[in-house]
Amino acid sequence: MSKYSIGVDFGTESGRAVLVDVSDGHEVATAVYPYSHAVIDESLPDGGPRLEPDWALQDPQDYIRTFKSTIPAVLKESGVDPEDVIGIGIDFTACTMLPVKADGTPLCDLPAYRSRPHAWVKLWKHHAAQPEADQINAVARKMGEGWLDRYGGKISSEWFFAKTLQIVNEDPEIYDAADRLIEAADWVVWQLTGEETRNSCTAGYKAIWSKREGFPRPEYFAALNPRMEKVIEEKMTTKIIPIGQRAGGLSAQAAGWTGLKADTAVAIANVDAHVAVPAATVTEPGRMVMIMGTSTCDMVLGTEEHIVPGMCGYVEDGIIPGYFGYEAGQSCVGDHFAWFVENCVPAAYEQEAKERGLDIHQLLEEKAKALKVGESGLLALDWWNGNRSVLVDVDLTGLLIGATLATKPEEIYRGLIEATAYGKRIIIETFQKNGVPIHELVACGGLPEKNKLLMQIYADVIGLPIRISASKQTPALGSAMFGAVAAGKSLGGYDSIYDAARVMAHLKEEKYTPDPENQKVYEKLYAEYVLLHDYFGRGSNDVMKRLKAIRSEARG
Amino acid sequence: MSKYSIGVDFGTESGRAVLVDVSDGHEVATAVYPYSHAVIDESLPDGGPRLEPDWALQDPQDYIRTFKSTIPAVLKESGVDPEDVIGIGIDFTACTMLPVKADGTPLCDLPAYRSRPHAWVKLWKHHAAQPEADQINAVARKMGEGWLDRYGGKISSEWFFAKTLQIVNEDPEIYDAADRLIEAADWVVWQLTGEETRNSCTAGYKAIWSKREGFPRPEYFAALNPRMEKVIEEKMTTKIIPIGQRAGGLSAQAAGWTGLKADTAVAIANVDAHVAVPAATVTEPGRMVMIMGTSTCDMVLGTEEHIVPGMCGYVEDGIIPGYFGYEAGQSCVGDHFAWFVENCVPAAYEQEAKERGLDIHQLLEEKAKALKVGESGLLALDWWNGNRSVLVDVDLTGLLIGATLATKPEEIYRGLIEATAYGKRIIIETFQKNGVPIHELVACGGLPEKNKLLMQIYADVIGLPIRISASKQTPALGSAMFGAVAAGKSLGGYDSIYDAARVMAHLKEEKYTPDPENQKVYEKLYAEYVLLHDYFGRGSNDVMKRLKAIRSEARG
Repeated sequence: MSKYSIGVDFGTESGRAVLVDVSDGHEVATAVYPYSHAVIDESLPDGGPRLEPDWALQDPQDYIRTFKSTIPAVLKESGVDPEDVIGIGIDFTACTMLPVKADGTPLCDLPAYRSRPHAWVKLWKHHAAQPEADQINAVARKMGEGWLDRYGGKISSEWFFAKTLQIVNEDPEIYDAADRLIEAADWVVWQLTGEETRNSCTAGYKAIWSKREGFPRPEYFAALNPRMEKVIEEKMTTKIIPIGQRAGGLSAQAAGWTGLKADTAVAIANVDAHVAVPAATVTEPGRMVMIMGTSTCDMVLGTEEHIVPGMCGYVEDGIIPGYFGYEAGQSCVGDHFAWFVENCVPAAYEQEAKERGLDIHQLLEEKAKALKVGESGLLALDWWNGNRSVLVDVDLTGLLIGATLATKPEEIYRGLIEATAYGKRIIIETFQKNGVPIHELVACGGLPEKNKLLMQIYADVIGLPIRISASKQTPALGSAMFGAVAAGKSLGGYDSIYDAARVMAHLKEEKYTPDPENQKVYEKLYAEYVLLHDYFGRGSNDVMKRLKAIRSEARG
Repeated sequence: MSKYSIGVDFGTESGRAVLVDVSDGHEVATAVYPYSHAVIDESLPDGGPRLEPDWALQDPQDYIRTFKSTIPAVLKESGVDPEDVIGIGIDFTACTMLPVKADGTPLCDLPAYRSRPHAWVKLWKHHAAQPEADQINAVARKMGEGWLDRYGGKISSEWFFAKTLQIVNEDPEIYDAADRLIEAADWVVWQLTGEETRNSCTAGYKAIWSKREGFPRPEYFAALNPRMEKVIEEKMTTKIIPIGQRAGGLSAQAAGWTGLKADTAVAIANVDAHVAVPAATVTEPGRMVMIMGTSTCDMVLGTEEHIVPGMCGYVEDGIIPGYFGYEAGQSCVGDHFAWFVENCVPAAYEQEAKERGLDIHQLLEEKAKALKVGESGLLALDWWNGNRSVLVDVDLTGLLIGATLATKPEEIYRGLIEATAYGKRIIIETFQKNGVPIHELVACGGLPEKNKLLMQIYADVIGLPIRISASKQTPALGSAMFGAVAAGKSLGGYDSIYDAARVMAHLKEEKYTPDPENQKVYEKLYAEYVLLHDYFGRGSNDVMKRLKAIRSEARG
């Protein structure tokens, strides 16, 4: 008799459940719930003040509605008996966090706080805590906090304590009223099991926790704001549970929401990008996983602790238990091409695509593919949205060089693709130079499916073979795998994520292999990229920052 | 009784005659003849070999047809009695040259040579003589020829002896068969008067002649190719006539073509850009004329001889008798915006322009005008077609920096306009620093009419007031002015171009004055432009050239 597991992937605009056959990873049924309030970035659902620019909130009840809607739907679609569903895992965007009462009730669900923006969920892309991030970094540097090195020397405004400090600064009553401050990932697991747990992935990557050193010391938090001195003791916990554990069993209430059996195993929460790693078959060092969408996350495992300059962070047990999980990223990949298509593609191309029944990206890919490597004479720096790794600098901007009156749109499009490939190569070489070996790439996410030219360019530029994850919904599959591990072998699941990955995770047959002729030309172009990268990115000419400063002044 | 003069402007695609009232410069009638063979760049009119890329030829009979078509047309339209037409002047693109027999018959009109490409007129934009230009420069440097400095250290492939040397190298029989090698400007005057003359403008700017030193010495020409040793003596002349003189009277034959009186005064030939200077009211130092179209020519007069680095050239009596005429240029101005509109404007903008009944340039101008100075955060180097002044380097390419995911098309469009303004400021400052004062700008050509935003940006960036020529066909007006000078005061014309300009040339009332607030921001942006200009343009990082080399290799 087959056993099944359910993975629930909480994205930015919707939640998605996938019901998976534990014996082979087959994805039997999928259901998606578009959040009723999606991203709240103008005003709160029940009114209240207009939100400042850069705010991005969510309604926690949208997550509960995701469970109520999608799990019954996959059960119904598949016809699977809830008796045969042995586990659930979830993954979430991060850092997405909220203030709650001791019983888990979100402050925004209490009438007293419903009109207070800081009572709501702060979504990962809430970017209004930059002043707080600046303070966190400045104070850490001043106090010589060693943990700063683990995060490439810089804590992001997206992360847990930047968001927390913003609450403290702007609405201290909310901070005081919050019994707990918690990642949404952990909060939804709490709602499923009735028990609060904290996972090592978000704690490590987003909340400055490490297995060996724990959280920053109270003196540091007190230096940020005296109110925060005991933030860990009072509103969080030092009990951090590694990825791959069972968080608890499904509560009777959650069984009612979902139609699943009470006490079904629920896995410790995980992050969308990180959970994709084992789902892309990677449970060992040497193969880097690239989760490629609007932006890109790069994940690689290591057996040793290394300070790699310009990485987003590394966390022991953060991706796969027993390994250091290293994360890097590029902040503008799919977004780059979307920007180009929206702003720079002439009407004649739109018309041609329409007449030939092609998507505009397909038309551009076709035209760009016909170009020989180097024949456009163009080179770009892929910094339209700053540089996450390895320069860790949001104030860098995009550059295009080599344009002539003969330059065609497809040449610029290809130049942008190539620029992201050069940026990726710098990340990979930085890992390699700092003791984290990489010999193969595994891609997942939306882009590898859609753009074969892009994958071949990556292989040619980087000089490594690239495999593609078989699943089109890798994070949800990864969560289902962790659900099966939470259930354990005795219940028909697996005792470890390694065992689960061997059976449930798959790669496509197709493989992208570097073309030696293309590589030769890309070597030359990459050398030029590195020269410009270092000139504009490492302080020789800070024109990009000065232009941004002039821009800010002009906008007033 | 009013007197009239006719100016004939020979452009790239057509010839234009304007009949002008000598008493006030009023343009009474205009007629245009589109050349029947336009630009010959694929194959000769009667067949023959397929032309190589970069070739651009013309049919000299198109020039004769211009006289036959347009002059009778303006006489008819105006109703002016040919008795009252006192003079004719012509201006031409340059260097546009052809091989002819001693009687003026073009070699291409002889059956023996009709299928030989080198027998035809080489148009200014014939770009196939680059190897010859390289040789001319290398040999001149090696032999220490002093004249090289007068041309910014580099002779262009467009110029007279590069084209001549290409004939010598590739079809020496044509070279030998040619009794004369002559600028088309001088050739059409010859056809009008029956007498061969050579003007100081094309001789000086395009054929390495100067009033004080004459042409390069025979030893130099012999070093290029022994066949060329006596090129001046055998196929040209050392008798060069200053601008502003009478070439002769209209021949009976030409009177028959045109309907004008025989012996009507014909002025010495001139170049389209240069003849525009007095027509834009400028006959004295201090005011620079910008002829703004697809590319831009900048002309300024000086009383002394100065070596100004990176200029196209300076010629005594080359623009206005008695002055040194300095010429600089930008190789990509209107072309820049045309490229942008063709390749980078999204369908939504085309749609909006259509719905609102606007030209796409008008829509972009409107959107770009709404931007505050500096608010886009963008900066460009305007080198899409290389840099003519002051770097004199065709291998430089375009650069755009500061792009983000929020960058809009109108921001890039404005950035390109600003880039050409920064480039202009460098030209002006280079003149000023080297002893050629400039305190006001006068613009003419197509762009100033069409784009008021561009003119205001130029005033703000450069920090000088800008006036606009009143005539929409400034070169033709200038030629008519020289026609009136050729006739002289005794016949109802003028004794000098100064007198003619005072009466016949006019500026528009409107004036563009620098806005001090905008200037403040542009000072900062210009400093950034100069930094990038020098970094990429003066050898610190020759990435543009290396990318071009990679491009050439890729194209094979």
